[in-house]
Amino acid sequence: MTLEAIRYRAGSLQILNQLLLPHQTVYDEIRSVQDAYEAIKSMKVRGAPAIAIVGCLSLAVELRAGAGGDDPVTFIRESLCHLTSARPTAVNMGRAARELMEFAENESMEKNSEQLRESVISWIEDMLERDVNDNKKIGNYGAQHILSGVPRDSVTVLTHCNTGSLATAGYGTALGVVRSLHALGRLKRVYCTETRPYNQGSRLTAYEAVAEGIPATLITDSMAALTMREMDITAVVVGADRVVANGDTANKVGTYQLAIAAKHHGIPFYVAAPSTSCDLSLESGRDIIIEVRPSEELTSINGVPIAAQGIEVWNPAFDVTPHQLITGGIITELGVFLPSELQAALTGRLTAL
Amino acid sequence: MTLEAIRYRAGSLQILNQLLLPHQTVYDEIRSVQDAYEAIKSMKVRGAPAIAIVGCLSLAVELRAGAGGDDPVTFIRESLCHLTSARPTAVNMGRAARELMEFAENESMEKNSEQLRESVISWIEDMLERDVNDNKKIGNYGAQHILSGVPRDSVTVLTHCNTGSLATAGYGTALGVVRSLHALGRLKRVYCTETRPYNQGSRLTAYEAVAEGIPATLITDSMAALTMREMDITAVVVGADRVVANGDTANKVGTYQLAIAAKHHGIPFYVAAPSTSCDLSLESGRDIIIEVRPSEELTSINGVPIAAQGIEVWNPAFDVTPHQLITGGIITELGVFLPSELQAALTGRLTAL
Repeated sequence: MTLEAIRYRAGSLQILNQLLLPHQTVYDEIRSVQDAYEAIKSMKVRGAPAIAIVGCLSLAVELRAGAGGDDPVTFIRESLCHLTSARPTAVNMGRAARELMEFAENESMEKNSEQLRESVISWIEDMLERDVNDNKKIGNYGAQHILSGVPRDSVTVLTHCNTGSLATAGYGTALGVVRSLHALGRLKRVYCTETRPYNQGSRLTAYEAVAEGIPATLITDSMAALTMREMDITAVVVGADRVVANGDTANKVGTYQLAIAAKHHGIPFYVAAPSTSCDLSLESGRDIIIEVRPSEELTSINGVPIAAQGIEVWNPAFDVTPHQLITGGIITELGVFLPSELQAALTGRLTAL
Repeated sequence: MTLEAIRYRAGSLQILNQLLLPHQTVYDEIRSVQDAYEAIKSMKVRGAPAIAIVGCLSLAVELRAGAGGDDPVTFIRESLCHLTSARPTAVNMGRAARELMEFAENESMEKNSEQLRESVISWIEDMLERDVNDNKKIGNYGAQHILSGVPRDSVTVLTHCNTGSLATAGYGTALGVVRSLHALGRLKRVYCTETRPYNQGSRLTAYEAVAEGIPATLITDSMAALTMREMDITAVVVGADRVVANGDTANKVGTYQLAIAAKHHGIPFYVAAPSTSCDLSLESGRDIIIEVRPSEELTSINGVPIAAQGIEVWNPAFDVTPHQLITGGIITELGVFLPSELQAALTGRLTAL
């Protein structure tokens, strides 16, 4: 069974309500842009790629029902503005909004309202399909790269946070690589860190693994190095929030520590990310500002305090892994590249390995 | 203010009920060996040294009230057997019971019941005093060693788990080093990992720090490497469950990962432990068996599920840090030693550095 976090058929959209995970599996109907706005704002859907897809698909649903009447461009513009404001830091929604708006404005010069609606709906449906296909390419490139040169029949990998169907348009990035290994019959087991403080590993990655029958074991973040030493880990694969020009990678806090431990044990460390997560405008990871989030994420769970009252807290949400520690490579939909090859690969000067 | 986890005055014993921490500070009266047995079994008191002290002090309280009548040796033997059975894996209680029993039997040859009671009470009171004094020596040796050669006025350290007043007879081992640095006015800040899955850092170490006004910041285990890179950490100091002959050290899971990260950042890594935690009968850490604990410690907090149902879990309670990673030294009440010097130091062939 394949986990569907986003269920889209022409004119109909449902999302898996992540606020109820992992305890309840409930799909919520998204009938309008406003429904999507509220789902994004309340974090029923999370993960930057998933937010963008759900936002755009909700627009497609309304357009198919004739929204915008004689002036669909205005309706599209206002809808995209509204959607982007739901979680302004999720960059993918902003980028999708800019690209879609430019497309709609160009189309509106030569098409009537009905034709415009049709082509915008197609653009959005293509976006969904392209994102899922890109993730599948990432999964397959990553799986082949990990398997190449490994004499074993099956491999054991370690991953961090949630980078699966629940964070993307579908299939996933790092967890997509795990899915591909499993589909090939070559995955012995995946170890998932619980990923404190927000527990994306224990709540979401574990949920996806159980739902699809992927052999998976949950560990605390503190057990990763011991797992590398004791459990014959073939590779560590993580996602990325942003990969910059020299290959330095910002990702969920704890990634840097995993990369250090992987290097210590001689285990290849991979970053899996679509080329759209690569930001060549920044030279190095030093330019990335680390978001610091509220203390309560550490000191309570579901509103119940778990730490001593009055303790100070530092809660950085991300860290930056220097490119030197990304020893396996950066897995994109274009192929797997060393950090030093990334710029050339993304600008078309290098083809897939 | 100094946190007192064990309040003992001749004839009276109270313990800080750790089941209610960090939310409530409640002292429970221990009037008998049976009271202590129940407190140990229910984990109102935890930490191997603290268990041994509370068990023996409860015996002292009963002896002072005349327990054992004309045959105190039988009473002492039965009491120690009972206390040792409360948590049989806590080695310190077993060792204290053997030593105390041997002492009581020798004394009984030449003393009457009343005199015997007096000398056993003195032995137990000496044990409490010696343990606290040993911890203070560990604290001072450790603080001096960390400060030596550091040009800065104040230092920032990182610690793991709880090794303070709540785990020992008082003062603490690794947290004793932190207390000594603070008492010297040289501690800028201590970073405490929350120490998943049992959260000894966020519940207990944070509680001790807040209670005594020690400047402390709580982080998740996954943030330790980032903290080392960003927060100018002078040293990492942890406790030990067991140090073996070559210096390999078993301690709370996550210690190994911290040692790898410390090495990567060139930060000295210290183990603080009394000589009684050193076990020269084992050659290397390979001989230490890692205890694997129930899955529920990861998948629920206070009985509330926090992980996807059906996920497999690996929950090793400890890990072994190879001596090569203990770059700062092993801090004992005899001084600070390199792992390679430990055997000679403990057998009197080497004096304190």
